[in-house]
This record gives sequence, structure tokens and C-alpha cells, in this order.
Amino acid sequence: MISVALLSRPGLMDPMKSLLARELPGVTVASWSEAAARDAELAVCWKPEPGALAAMPKLKLIHSIAAGVDNILSDPTVPDVPLCRIVDPGITAAMTEFVLWGTLYIHRDFDRVISNARDGRWQRYDQRAAKDTRVGILGLGELGTDAARRLVDLGFAVSGWSRSPKQLAGVRTFSGTDALDPFLSETDILVSLLPLTSSTVGLLDAARLSRLPKGAALILCSRGEHVVMDDLVALLRSRHLRGAVLDVFEQEPLPSDHPLWREPGVLVTPHMAAIASWETIAQQVAENARRLLRGETLLNVVDRARGY
Amino acid sequence: MISVALLSRPGLMDPMKSLLARELPGVTVASWSEAAARDAELAVCWKPEPGALAAMPKLKLIHSIAAGVDNILSDPTVPDVPLCRIVDPGITAAMTEFVLWGTLYIHRDFDRVISNARDGRWQRYDQRAAKDTRVGILGLGELGTDAARRLVDLGFAVSGWSRSPKQLAGVRTFSGTDALDPFLSETDILVSLLPLTSSTVGLLDAARLSRLPKGAALILCSRGEHVVMDDLVALLRSRHLRGAVLDVFEQEPLPSDHPLWREPGVLVTPHMAAIASWETIAQQVAENARRLLRGETLLNVVDRARGY
Repeated sequence: MISVALLSRPGLMDPMKSLLARELPGVTVASWSEAAARDAELAVCWKPEPGALAAMPKLKLIHSIAAGVDNILSDPTVPDVPLCRIVDPGITAAMTEFVLWGTLYIHRDFDRVISNARDGRWQRYDQRAAKDTRVGILGLGELGTDAARRLVDLGFAVSGWSRSPKQLAGVRTFSGTDALDPFLSETDILVSLLPLTSSTVGLLDAARLSRLPKGAALILCSRGEHVVMDDLVALLRSRHLRGAVLDVFEQEPLPSDHPLWREPGVLVTPHMAAIASWETIAQQVAENARRLLRGETLLNVVDRARGY
Repeated sequence: MISVALLSRPGLMDPMKSLLARELPGVTVASWSEAAARDAELAVCWKPEPGALAAMPKLKLIHSIAAGVDNILSDPTVPDVPLCRIVDPGITAAMTEFVLWGTLYIHRDFDRVISNARDGRWQRYDQRAAKDTRVGILGLGELGTDAARRLVDLGFAVSGWSRSPKQLAGVRTFSGTDALDPFLSETDILVSLLPLTSSTVGLLDAARLSRLPKGAALILCSRGEHVVMDDLVALLRSRHLRGAVLDVFEQEPLPSDHPLWREPGVLVTPHMAAIASWETIAQQVAENARRLLRGETLLNVVDRARGY
């Protein structure tokens, strides 16, 4: 039976020990603080310490506990063994729920209404039809595609941008770097569901965010590193942008004294948009462990050149 | 050509004058404060003064500017001429958006997250699947049916209650007074979309609201009179209920010093869930005016015995 190491900040992956033992009878599971971890063949990771994976001579497979692998590939010393990620229908449904909620929060003026309620202020805003609100989805993978489809069902004017060309029923699609500015210029609510790669870090800077029409809003569900936060705040303060729902940050948890919590127009949420359950993660890691032992094709292998 | 009177608080219906003049060339339109209003054949109303309609000797048709007519029938002196209401697909879509937003607000813990954000507090809650949240729709007319269908699409466990039996795909339906308590006892998020009639005034009192399971929430989109607000507040304070999104109130606008604005767990919204545009209202009123003049069947006539 295979041996597994858990690489994360202390305590985070404790629930995995018993779950993997149940899925893989006879498995040995060690936290990174235990000496046995160095000799494991399978590394299960969330933000492993830089250099840690390179220090595992028997490593055969690296598994992220998330849909994204930027938390692992940010370390240039990661050994060249297969790298897998979690693909969970529950994550997709949860992400779509978050995107729908955030879109309606802006479209139906709940941001203003909730702010007014604190002052006991009864104020209505003009009711727009969904077809008159243009929602732009940045990234058309599993998550972006599902969110786009639901938004189309509700009647929104949906467009989507992806690196390579995609076709989606009812969605106006744009692809490639040159199409990014035209895409942004016709987007009232921008939803970021991009993977974090070297080509998407800092993508949403002052120049790009300024392309959004006056009064546009941002829903950030991907990674904090996609946005130059100082640029976003400047565009909110100049009233070019109306607001932002921010679920992800370079530093998480966002410290309680961070000014973003109190920035007018910003709603900070605690990286909650879509969280896989430990049960699902353990099942998918265990399935790939069995496949590795039997020499079978692994599931959800990441293309390192693309980063997802 | 027909003559029209506008009965409402002063100013509210001012936009209707030019819109009706455009739809009905030669029409005369008078506000209630003008003497000519008493001689009108068509009364367009929102909360007319009690007795006003009875003082119109030539009255042939009463038209509500809303989907509901409780604002008119609360006056026992209303003459026995046809009474019509507005039925607008835009209202249905807007109401469904409001219900989806409110459901996700509770289901995904945005109520708690927004409250925490004010204190800079990063706290996640367990992510539930939609299938594990039971949404109960009170009232399965045009609005309740559409909202139920969308919630089913998103995977929620949806049930519905109506006065008379109804069948709806994917929805567990209950009907009649005896079924109300069983319906409530299995509802985590209760959405009221009932019409206001003599049999639904005060329907949600302490006894009924206590039937909801501990931790349940209320989304009130119908009329404030459906709920005994003191009973609701008591159940929120005892923590039997988790929260409420309240869009309608006995007195509107809700005064800025009303304690509901500041009641923990309550979100007050300004009767915004679904508002017909003046254009749509004017078109539907004008169409019924033309039908009245030609002696044709009127659209959206209310059954006064049912109250909707």
C-alpha cells in the first residue's frame, strides 16, 4: 500500500487522516512535521512550503486539495511527477450559487439597499430587466461555463472570455489577449473565474479595469492575485467602478485591520464561494492513489504548461 | 373617448397622465384632487381613499396598478363594477430574482458573512448542498410557480402550499388549511407570495411561525399584513428563527425610526421585489379601456370572492 504525506499549514488537513485510512486500507499517512512524510510516494498539498516536495525522493504523485494548483506550482522546485487537482460537481454548483447571488446583489441594487438599511433609509432604485445587464465571465472552464449557462437561463446578457476560442449557447464569446479590452468594455458585471497562472497574475490592473464601463462591478471568485487591489480601490474611489464582491485575497484570512473590509462598495467574503468537502477530496485522492498503484490513467491531471 | 381618474396619494401617478394620453388619443385624465375625477368612468388606483370610488356615479371599471388588489378591496364601499389588476411577465421575472437572491442569502450564509464583514471578521460556515435546503413557497400563483421552478432548477428541495390543490414538476405540494402546519414543519426557508385576502391576513402568527424548524428563515414578498410582526420578532429573539428578509410592511415607507430596521437578523428592503413599469401599467390599463369601450372581454379581471 502507498504512503501519503500531507503538506499544508499545521492542522488544516487533520480530517484527511481518518478519511484516507477508510478509503485505502493499510495506507500510512503522515503530516509534514513527521519524519515519515519525506519518504511518502503521494503528496497531498495546500500551499506546501517551498522546497518541501523537492525533498521527497520517492515522490510519484502530487495532489492538490483544490481545483486550482497555483498554490503548488508557485514553487519552481516542484518535481516533475504527475500533478492532479480536485474536480467536484459540488464545487461547480456552489460556485454558480455564489456567482448568481453576487450578480443579483449588484443587478437588483441589494448593495445599496443593505447600506441604506443601516441608516433606516427607504429608497428604491429603477428596476432593470436582466436582459439589460451585461454579465461578463472571465474564464470559461468548468466553473465559468456552468455559471454562464445559469445566467443565460435567468435572461442576463452574458458574454465570456477565454484564452482559446469556445462556443457556448446564448453566450457571446471572446478569446485571446486582443479580445480582452473589447470584452471588458461591454461588461456591467465582471465575474473572474480564471485559473491563476503566470499569464493571469495581475491581469486586472488599472488599464484593464478602466475599460469596464462607468458603474461596472467586479465579482472576484478566482484568486486575489488576479487583481491589482490598489488599482481597484482607486477606481472605486473615483466612482468609475460601482462596487466589488471579493472572495479571494493574496493573504488569507484577510487580516481584520485590512482596509478592504471597510472600503465603501466592497463586500469581503471569506473565500467561501466553493469549498470541496473533505470526504470528496479524500475520495478523489484515494481513487488516484489506487490508479497509481495499478498503473492506470490518473484523473484530473494538470497540464503544467497551461497551469490548469 | 373614455375619462380616467387617478386615485392615489398626490403625485404618485403623475407619469400616467402623458402615458395614457399617448395610448388613448382624446382621453381625459384627472387626478383625484381635480373636480373632473368624480365623473370619470375608469378609476386607476393605488390605495384610494375609502369612499372615493363610491363617490363616482359614472364608474364602469376599476383598475389596480399592481398585481394585488387588496389596496382597493380593503374599502367595503367599493362599487360592484369590474376590477382588473396588472399581470406583467416583468414582475414575475423580477420577483423570481428577488426570491433567488433571498434564498441564496440564507442558504449560503451571506446574512452572517455581511454582518461579520462589518467587524472585519473572516469566518466560514459549513457549505450545504442545495438539495439539503428545503424551500417552502406559500402561494402557488403566477409568482410562486415561477419562483418554485427556478429553485428546482438550482437543486433546492422545494415544496409549495396553496389554498386549492396544485401539481408542479419537482415540487412537493400541500393544499388547504390542514396541510399548512405539516408544510411549515418541513421548511427551512419560507417564501411568502400569497395574495392578501381576509383569510390570509395575520396568517403567519406565533403559532404558525413556531411550526417552522429551529433555524428557519422567512422571505416576505407578499404583504406586510400576512405576518404578525411582533410574533416574528419574538421568535427571532428567542433564536427559534434565524432571520427574515422583509420587503413589505403594513406602513410603507417603513419609518426610519422603526425598530425593524435595526432588529438583528432582519433585512428590510423597500418594497422593491417586483415593480411594474409605468409604461407597462399604462399599456394594460389602456388595453382594458379600449376593450370596455368596444364591449369586449376585459383582461386580468379579479374574482372578488377569492380576492385575486
